[in-house]
Amino acid sequence: MRRAIELAYQGPAAGPNPRVGCVILAADDGGPRRILGEGYHRGAGTPHAEVDALRDARERASLSNGNPLRGATAIVTLEPCSHTGRTGPCTEALAAAGIREVIYAVDDPNPEAAGGATYLRDRDIRVESGVGREEAFEVVRVWATSLRLGRPFVTLKLATTLDGKIAAEDGTSQWITSSAAREHAHRTRSEVGAILVGTGTVLSDDPSLTARDPDGTAFPQQPLRVALGHRQVPMDARMRGNEDEFLHLATRDPAEALAALADREIRHVLVEGGASVAAAFLKVGLVDELHTYLAPMILGSGKSAVDPFGIETLTDAERWHTEEVRRLGQDTFIRAVKLPAQPSTTKHPGA
Amino acid sequence: MRRAIELAYQGPAAGPNPRVGCVILAADDGGPRRILGEGYHRGAGTPHAEVDALRDARERASLSNGNPLRGATAIVTLEPCSHTGRTGPCTEALAAAGIREVIYAVDDPNPEAAGGATYLRDRDIRVESGVGREEAFEVVRVWATSLRLGRPFVTLKLATTLDGKIAAEDGTSQWITSSAAREHAHRTRSEVGAILVGTGTVLSDDPSLTARDPDGTAFPQQPLRVALGHRQVPMDARMRGNEDEFLHLATRDPAEALAALADREIRHVLVEGGASVAAAFLKVGLVDELHTYLAPMILGSGKSAVDPFGIETLTDAERWHTEEVRRLGQDTFIRAVKLPAQPSTTKHPGA
Repeated sequence: MRRAIELAYQGPAAGPNPRVGCVILAADDGGPRRILGEGYHRGAGTPHAEVDALRDARERASLSNGNPLRGATAIVTLEPCSHTGRTGPCTEALAAAGIREVIYAVDDPNPEAAGGATYLRDRDIRVESGVGREEAFEVVRVWATSLRLGRPFVTLKLATTLDGKIAAEDGTSQWITSSAAREHAHRTRSEVGAILVGTGTVLSDDPSLTARDPDGTAFPQQPLRVALGHRQVPMDARMRGNEDEFLHLATRDPAEALAALADREIRHVLVEGGASVAAAFLKVGLVDELHTYLAPMILGSGKSAVDPFGIETLTDAERWHTEEVRRLGQDTFIRAVKLPAQPSTTKHPGA
Repeated sequence: MRRAIELAYQGPAAGPNPRVGCVILAADDGGPRRILGEGYHRGAGTPHAEVDALRDARERASLSNGNPLRGATAIVTLEPCSHTGRTGPCTEALAAAGIREVIYAVDDPNPEAAGGATYLRDRDIRVESGVGREEAFEVVRVWATSLRLGRPFVTLKLATTLDGKIAAEDGTSQWITSSAAREHAHRTRSEVGAILVGTGTVLSDDPSLTARDPDGTAFPQQPLRVALGHRQVPMDARMRGNEDEFLHLATRDPAEALAALADREIRHVLVEGGASVAAAFLKVGLVDELHTYLAPMILGSGKSAVDPFGIETLTDAERWHTEEVRRLGQDTFIRAVKLPAQPSTTKHPGA
């Protein structure tokens, strides 16, 4: 399962589908189990991990006789799907290949695709679930949460001084955080489906909102760049790029914006500001995760990271759950979530 | 030296004197060197570490014949002093005991007490310095900085939300940080000579400013509690306690306040707020270290941790050096200093 999880992480984080990894082990002949094939899902429209691993096993075995997959075990990070989407159901492919046992980590939270375990058991395939569930759930955490909530998972990014400022009195803000923090932030951009900023930020900062490595080279995966708000986005705004990955949502309502992004199969949105957009999302409870980058500076005056959003007394304020604290050069990164991550606890009968 | 540093840490952090540890090793007879005695400095007016270790060695050896210290080696974290303060010079005691070799880590930065190495060499005692200097310097960092600056070392404490607020709109602030963070903050109080707050904070929060463990039991070492500002401190203010450790400095000038505290042999002041006092110290560059406790909350509105103090553009702001980042329960603790810690680089001739 550890290897299957490694394989899963090789898939793209930003797509509409979950990242899944699969390892096929040869039938038990008393000795150590041989790996017949490995696979992972490379994104929407490409084969699922199970089918990819079956293909890999067939390629590796092309010179040998008979069906090497007969009696084999498939180890998968997510319950094999039993529905036909852009590709056919994996359960069918596994059964047809002669797989005798399927071990998976996380139950499929997608009601459309679930039922895979039942399908397999009905075909006399042994099924075991929950193996390595916590680790494997981390791979699909954002996707599963998005599915459960019926909207994109929202990460709010704040890059501030130790006293919570995002710009000095005169508006200067480049650079509060260090290059190590910016590198981390750009990598995050490359792992989300969309980045969203307010039109006010577009007009004041004219950000390009691309995901680049420290050399300035763009990552292969670029998020959709979304401007939120009623103001016009200038024709020469840098975030327009070649317009392919640009979207202007002329609303100030976070829920409306997220619905529009869900329609485009966006599972993860990174909200990068400004202070009024951050406040708008927090006010309606539409932030699932905070990415806070803190630079060791104090400004005293200047622009606060989040505008007032209706909290009057301390007990009204939400207490987030700190999931990760790390140094990034001179800066500190804190990742906090609304609820502690937890895998689905649904149990299949007999599992 | 590692053992000597351990011993040094057993001394009180809050006193006017540096913490020093000393180990005496038996004369080299070809075999492993035996420890004859150990000692550390327990605070002003008590024997220095070297004298404490010599006493320990004499006690342990009381039943044996001759002078076991003849030809022995003293390992000390700080250069032995050569002046008579509240106690006699250590160099004299070491020489009189028959010590043949002294190995120490950090040169004494106190001009009044320095010259110990020279004194010892003049008496044909072998001297080696700089062994384990970085680690040993950490023990005396605050004291040495205070000595160099001619004023108490100033730590500014900020306990805020992730967006830099210390209280909600209606003034509520208990508790922003978690019990783990408060425990750390109370331990810090027990390690400083004084805690300072503005009279505004006294009037609004009426803090007791004692150092207590999580049960509420007061630590044996309590800092001087200092109120800064022109407003009266009510007779029933909790920080007055039994008045023994209370001081009202009727000034708003940080330099004046620090001079008054230096006169009382305070080497380390913890400035705990409020926002205007924090700003006053930052404005005149009289903060040496920041202790930031960040709770995973966002308020949007409310009171900022630091009032404006004249920074208008980003390049005017000081960039601190992050020395320590750690989780305290759900909170994050960041310790940043004005300059990276560095031991004295003074070299004695021949060292």
